[in-house]
Amino acid sequence: MQYQAPANDLRFLLFDVLGADTLHELEKYADATPDLISAVIDEAGKLAAEVIQPTNQTGDRQGCHYDPETKSVKTPDGFKEAYAKFVEGGWTALDAPIEFGGQGLPHTLKFVVDEMVCSTNLSLGMYPGLTHGAISALHTHGSYELKQTYLEKLISGEWTGTMCLTEPHCGTDLGLIRTKATPNDDGSYAIEGTKIWITGGEHDLVDNIVHLVLAKLPGAPDTTKGISLFVVPKFLPDSGERNPAFCGGLEHKMGIKGSATCVMNFEGAKGWLVGEPNKGMSAMFTMMNEARLMVGMQGLGLAEMAYQESLAFAKERLQSRSLSGPKNPDGPADPIIVHPDVRRMLMRQKVLNEGMRALALFTGHQLDLSVAHPDDAVRENADDLVQLLTPVVKAFLTDEGYNNANWGQQVLGGSGFTQDWPLEQLVRDGRIARIYEGTNGIQAMDLVGRKLALKGGQLVRALFAELTGYLKDNPDAPHREELKVSIKSLEQATLWLAQNAPKDPEQAGAAASPYLRLMALTVIGYLWSRMAGVAHRQLDAGEGNTPLLESKLVSARYYFEKLMPEADWLLRDIDSGKDSLMAFEDQHWMA
Amino acid sequence: MQYQAPANDLRFLLFDVLGADTLHELEKYADATPDLISAVIDEAGKLAAEVIQPTNQTGDRQGCHYDPETKSVKTPDGFKEAYAKFVEGGWTALDAPIEFGGQGLPHTLKFVVDEMVCSTNLSLGMYPGLTHGAISALHTHGSYELKQTYLEKLISGEWTGTMCLTEPHCGTDLGLIRTKATPNDDGSYAIEGTKIWITGGEHDLVDNIVHLVLAKLPGAPDTTKGISLFVVPKFLPDSGERNPAFCGGLEHKMGIKGSATCVMNFEGAKGWLVGEPNKGMSAMFTMMNEARLMVGMQGLGLAEMAYQESLAFAKERLQSRSLSGPKNPDGPADPIIVHPDVRRMLMRQKVLNEGMRALALFTGHQLDLSVAHPDDAVRENADDLVQLLTPVVKAFLTDEGYNNANWGQQVLGGSGFTQDWPLEQLVRDGRIARIYEGTNGIQAMDLVGRKLALKGGQLVRALFAELTGYLKDNPDAPHREELKVSIKSLEQATLWLAQNAPKDPEQAGAAASPYLRLMALTVIGYLWSRMAGVAHRQLDAGEGNTPLLESKLVSARYYFEKLMPEADWLLRDIDSGKDSLMAFEDQHWMA
Repeated sequence: MQYQAPANDLRFLLFDVLGADTLHELEKYADATPDLISAVIDEAGKLAAEVIQPTNQTGDRQGCHYDPETKSVKTPDGFKEAYAKFVEGGWTALDAPIEFGGQGLPHTLKFVVDEMVCSTNLSLGMYPGLTHGAISALHTHGSYELKQTYLEKLISGEWTGTMCLTEPHCGTDLGLIRTKATPNDDGSYAIEGTKIWITGGEHDLVDNIVHLVLAKLPGAPDTTKGISLFVVPKFLPDSGERNPAFCGGLEHKMGIKGSATCVMNFEGAKGWLVGEPNKGMSAMFTMMNEARLMVGMQGLGLAEMAYQESLAFAKERLQSRSLSGPKNPDGPADPIIVHPDVRRMLMRQKVLNEGMRALALFTGHQLDLSVAHPDDAVRENADDLVQLLTPVVKAFLTDEGYNNANWGQQVLGGSGFTQDWPLEQLVRDGRIARIYEGTNGIQAMDLVGRKLALKGGQLVRALFAELTGYLKDNPDAPHREELKVSIKSLEQATLWLAQNAPKDPEQAGAAASPYLRLMALTVIGYLWSRMAGVAHRQLDAGEGNTPLLESKLVSARYYFEKLMPEADWLLRDIDSGKDSLMAFEDQHWMA
Repeated sequence: MQYQAPANDLRFLLFDVLGADTLHELEKYADATPDLISAVIDEAGKLAAEVIQPTNQTGDRQGCHYDPETKSVKTPDGFKEAYAKFVEGGWTALDAPIEFGGQGLPHTLKFVVDEMVCSTNLSLGMYPGLTHGAISALHTHGSYELKQTYLEKLISGEWTGTMCLTEPHCGTDLGLIRTKATPNDDGSYAIEGTKIWITGGEHDLVDNIVHLVLAKLPGAPDTTKGISLFVVPKFLPDSGERNPAFCGGLEHKMGIKGSATCVMNFEGAKGWLVGEPNKGMSAMFTMMNEARLMVGMQGLGLAEMAYQESLAFAKERLQSRSLSGPKNPDGPADPIIVHPDVRRMLMRQKVLNEGMRALALFTGHQLDLSVAHPDDAVRENADDLVQLLTPVVKAFLTDEGYNNANWGQQVLGGSGFTQDWPLEQLVRDGRIARIYEGTNGIQAMDLVGRKLALKGGQLVRALFAELTGYLKDNPDAPHREELKVSIKSLEQATLWLAQNAPKDPEQAGAAASPYLRLMALTVIGYLWSRMAGVAHRQLDAGEGNTPLLESKLVSARYYFEKLMPEADWLLRDIDSGKDSLMAFEDQHWMA
């Protein structure tokens, strides 16, 4: 079946709920009128359905192929053509800086497009996805010369970019990296070392690949404070000479088989320092934070596709009769969508997907405000929220995106397990998103270990101000009481962390994952209340898309009745602390 | 790494907790002394680790191959040899009836062996697994002649069996089947029709395959009351003639690639009626209920392997320092098992796996009592519990077995996504267990729609008697208060169903899945309390395996602190009823 972009939901969220219809009032986003945003949504939806989706299954079946002779990688049939159309449509340039050929549109739109691309071919989306991070790192931290040399071609999509962080012995703990950067006479550096799991490290979509590589300068400390970032092109931009940065092979993976996951050997390749020496981690985090938000959209994108596929199946598949009497009396049985337990699986997907979309676009909107709003205080507040919510978006959307893809697969029964249907691929592809760009456990540690402590707790205070401000301003907010309970739980959990984590950081580690989940559920609850509030107002006024507005009211109810009560469980988990986690000694694990 | 059978946990559970050490006092199980049970555990563990496990990865990589010329199926390298050793060791005959060459041992032991086989190669385990169901159906419902003809060779493993239920247009709703059985002159029937998803429908492990096929007699009603069961051998036992029951192809699946999942075409194949005409569903349920318990063990088996693999990884992989100071000061970093969030994933696996094993073996023990105890009332009570808990074991162990395999994969980070490690295969293989032998949604409907109503509610009363009897007899039961709360929640939910389901069966459908989960968590809580109680007593008495007993106390605490509180959430979900599930009309799903 053909993908159908969630255009109505996007317009409802962006314009009617989040206020992105006024983005064009900000000077930086003067072009981003509602008409233009709407046109982008429609065009991206068409591209995803017509150009990208047809490459998805082929990509999975063929995978990428490595030729050890030439050290080159062949992507699956159709990828090159689809990528070319993506570039041709200017999609790589969407929110990129105007001075280097970008369109300078709001980042929220990038989120929107990311979701659609990932719904229809996650593997293909990875190539421009990583490039985007490289653009940001160079734009934020690179010298004028580096920007001049690389940005235009990366933004146009003529070249692609990579992030080269992980080495065989270290992923999470980048302080351990061994890749070396030795100064050359000409101001460049000779990069030597091996990187693994490099997405798009080598491929045949474009003529040049620009690697952003973490490496250590001579004498640098053996910690993350001794890491520097380098730009290492496959071909040197001035001479066209081949730089010795070679692909040594591909990983064989559970999914995203169309995405070339490379071992990269840097054999004295020429690189140029990006930013200051030993400050590579900060430049890396520019890429990383952006990548984390994108990975969140991957989780959502796959879940949206799983929802559409399983919904279509549930409407077609005839099996057993409705418990309240035949709904398809002329057929041999009723479509399985009549069964409450099947609807439970569909509703869970729909309600959580829309909630996750709201959370992501709320964060995207704050990101736009954080760079474009004229008021310093608004910008700072928005940036606080973005920083706080980035790990939440990454972890929750990928965990629940994966769970929802699994629920979609479950709706199909045995068909879902066969390769005749796309669900099993969605599950396999989606599995990686919980792992890469920092596992979801690392996201939770980032939230409780770093983000809560930043600026003396100002980030989480900004969130509470948002939540309680909403309750104050909306005495008749839908599901107000349930939302209050959840906000209260989040406050209690935050207080628990404030009391326990400083004297025992392992308490923070024990609480991290349930705390992140509690925050996600609460913020999504807040957004479901807002969506239901808008739906009520519009229905009362006889405005808008009636079925969509009606669906929002039912979905909000489903959310507060069936999903939100998890918050109590999470609070009790947090509250019980680390003891039962930390008590085992070596002899207990396999006694 | 090599699989290590959970022999200590099994002995603790069977002998010290469940009382299987007295099984040999029952006449039927006179041979099943603790020594013999212990020897079976050890021998099965050796077989699994040494013979079965080495075939697992090959099986996945090679898969099964179909030859359209000969309509034959080749299993992966090594399967034939491993199956031969399985047969040689008498494992196919373990709990089979003695009069046809079986060993007549307790069914609990079959559960134990199933877990180990599925830990080490689920695909291979499917061949004898399905045979076992065919044996039971023939033994319970077949005529003397049919038993004489088939049972000995099925029990010895010389032949294998299948269950042929599903057709392209029907799986859950078997009333719709179209396969026809037309009487021949000689008392046999000509079977015509197509069956799909037939495990082991065709393969090269043995010389003959015995299909148990659901089909309709001429003029039979168009419902499940018109279904009859037939035995259809690949080769006719008397003449050796090839019966026209041909494999038409194999499914391409997400996992269990070493298990031949066949399309079977019955082209007038000779079959013999098993049991009475039109009573095929009851015979089918003999196979099905047994298969459901076995599938539960599959979920557990895969989860146990995932635990062992991820534990070994977490002890080896060095990454970052412990939050409470270096634990491996001479190394570059600490093993990741020091981190609370990693321990959370490992503890979840261990505690839930051991709880699921306790639930399964409790059920297995009741199954043994239900067939072997001299007291009618004990037998009936045990049978009530087995019937009630069968869907619970199937659904909960496969849902949580899958989730735990995913947590194991998560512990490995990026490595878990590559095929260099076995985790991704465990996840892919485990996915099917939530689907086949009745999806887990169907299990939940079986529980609330059928099992709760049977005998006027006597089954669930038997469970409550067990639970409250335990609390009464054990005033100092560990975690008594938390357990009481959970039992109370289950009582409330049961009452809610009793009040709402009769007047509106859709309320039962809406509550089914969370109710099944609530029952599973409660019974497992009861068993964790019992395990902790035994551990306390043995530690006080200075008996037993100290590390194991200590681990049980910590694990019970983890269970009641971090997992059991989900029960409140489930109760609230149930309590909120069907409204938010059933409100959508057609236009709302994709508004």
